[in-house]
Amino acid sequence: MRKVKVYITLKEGVLDPQGKAVKNSLNTLDYANVNEVRVGKYMEVMMEDAENLEAQVEEMCEKLLANPVIEDYSYQIEEVIA
Amino acid sequence: MRKVKVYITLKEGVLDPQGKAVKNSLNTLDYANVNEVRVGKYMEVMMEDAENLEAQVEEMCEKLLANPVIEDYSYQIEEVIA
Repeated sequence: MRKVKVYITLKEGVLDPQGKAVKNSLNTLDYANVNEVRVGKYMEVMMEDAENLEAQVEEMCEKLLANPVIEDYSYQIEEVIA
Repeated sequence: MRKVKVYITLKEGVLDPQGKAVKNSLNTLDYANVNEVRVGKYMEVMMEDAENLEAQVEEMCEKLLANPVIEDYSYQIEEVIA
């Protein structure tokens, strides 16, 4: 069994209203040293190992998990000891 | 300057309808070896260094970034070379 950790972030230059809202809230809570916040998605995918696992993960990200127009993705594959 | 990477995940046992929907979609796309998907949030917070930075980050997570009732959080602090 494998645990694939997928990180999905907005591409550089894409507006991030959610990030701005979080940043403003943090500054309002007196965390004045917070300059910028970028909000993205974090997914943990539990899947059976496969010969072409990396290729499969790339395909899953390109086809479904990330929007290639505005998002970047990265991932880590970990072995899960049952 | 520091880049704080914050990972927010649903606690064990908390229902994850979004994760289920992603899992079903992946299975429909013939990724039959996907057993489970958990969807969470990933945030990058750019902030000036501070003496009590770790305490600050914990406070920010507890107060705003994560919902302590249903979510767990973890974070990594990286130095950013300007």
